[in-house]
Amino acid sequence: MADDSLFEFLHMEIVSHIYKEQESRGDHEKERGTCVSILECMGFRVGQGLIERITKDSPSFKDELDVMKFLCKDFWINIFKKQIDNLRTNHQGTYVLQDNRFALITQISSGKQYLEDAPKYLAFSCGLLRGALSNLGLESVVTAEVSLMPACKFQVVIQKL
Amino acid sequence: MADDSLFEFLHMEIVSHIYKEQESRGDHEKERGTCVSILECMGFRVGQGLIERITKDSPSFKDELDVMKFLCKDFWINIFKKQIDNLRTNHQGTYVLQDNRFALITQISSGKQYLEDAPKYLAFSCGLLRGALSNLGLESVVTAEVSLMPACKFQVVIQKL
Repeated sequence: MADDSLFEFLHMEIVSHIYKEQESRGDHEKERGTCVSILECMGFRVGQGLIERITKDSPSFKDELDVMKFLCKDFWINIFKKQIDNLRTNHQGTYVLQDNRFALITQISSGKQYLEDAPKYLAFSCGLLRGALSNLGLESVVTAEVSLMPACKFQVVIQKL
Repeated sequence: MADDSLFEFLHMEIVSHIYKEQESRGDHEKERGTCVSILECMGFRVGQGLIERITKDSPSFKDELDVMKFLCKDFWINIFKKQIDNLRTNHQGTYVLQDNRFALITQISSGKQYLEDAPKYLAFSCGLLRGALSNLGLESVVTAEVSLMPACKFQVVIQKL
């Protein structure tokens, strides 16, 4: 358990640092967007690095769905010690990954008043997914939403070239 | 193995982000000191949080040396998946912890020309130790040095009240 904590604590520190730093620049307008984008980029690079190691000994993937299943299982377990609870797709490049107990928001009180704070704790993980997909040859747009904490949905839209 | 990577990749991202951000502020003089101090503070808070979880089911400690041994073993393993290789003390509150293969600098090329880059990858971990000690009731000053990568020595000086 303490193993996961290291990542969770560190993630909290990063989010808090980045928001404080933008605030100190007094750039309130751009603030929110910039923070999300910095966190997303960090996640992207970490996702790229991780997937490279995790897939080192994996067989190659049959298709896009096969890749998504791998992310929902092996990739997610590696990072969050549990798999994605539900994966849905329209079979046209859009995937919805649902985690019913998303580690990075379980520490936040689940009252409704904190719902608006949730997005800043999701940006890094959106980046993780986008980075992993990118390294596997799939460009994507990844967004996330929380309707009832600590459950969380990631939407992945694969960009066709 | 990929488990450790998450922390290592994330740590790399943080270090690189904090240095770039200070650079962009154009504050070159204060730059170096500020970055080290930001990283050290992050480590401090993460160390505080981690030690609380790790010691939850541990018996209480006999003395200072007992605490240090715990940090060298359980605490270090929890974070770096290995224990400290050597612990020395003058029995007057100064401890030297040597890690012969310190995870956060093994990724840096071990050539001599990179030695000067090493300190920025040590600040966070100095903070980890100081935070853990602080939560166990011991105020300390923690510094680190690398003479031959990837070996690394942490010096802990307990502050007597």
